[in-house]
Amino acid sequence: MYLSRIRVTLRPSILDPQGKAVEHAIGTLGVGAVHGVRMGKYIEMKVEGATEAEARKVTEEVCRKLLANPVMEDFQYDIAKI
Amino acid sequence: MYLSRIRVTLRPSILDPQGKAVEHAIGTLGVGAVHGVRMGKYIEMKVEGATEAEARKVTEEVCRKLLANPVMEDFQYDIAKI
Repeated sequence: MYLSRIRVTLRPSILDPQGKAVEHAIGTLGVGAVHGVRMGKYIEMKVEGATEAEARKVTEEVCRKLLANPVMEDFQYDIAKI
Repeated sequence: MYLSRIRVTLRPSILDPQGKAVEHAIGTLGVGAVHGVRMGKYIEMKVEGATEAEARKVTEEVCRKLLANPVMEDFQYDIAKI
């Protein structure tokens, strides 16, 4: 079994109002200079598969078909045997 | 300047109905056996700071005070010089 850790992020050209709101809120905390905040999704899932290649294929397909909107989002993932 | 990549996840004891819904949707795709889907947040931000220790401190404080709900969520992050 493999653990897939997936990060779905907005493409750089897409505006991120949620990120802007968080950036503003961080400013009010007074903890230091933070900018370029971008919000994304993080997904963990367990994939049954005999090989890492198989788990990678399932993860890739789930990302492309379900988790990421290909018009606005990119995805990255890493896979670890568990 | 440093890039902080933060993952905020629900604690294992907290139910995750969004993850369950995604898991069900993955089942209907017919791509393979996937279970234990957990949804979280992924945040990228740029932190000004002279040293990595300083950037780490700012990131930690932002996570504790703003990004993660300590009752229900855990956070992890990594920091890279950019």
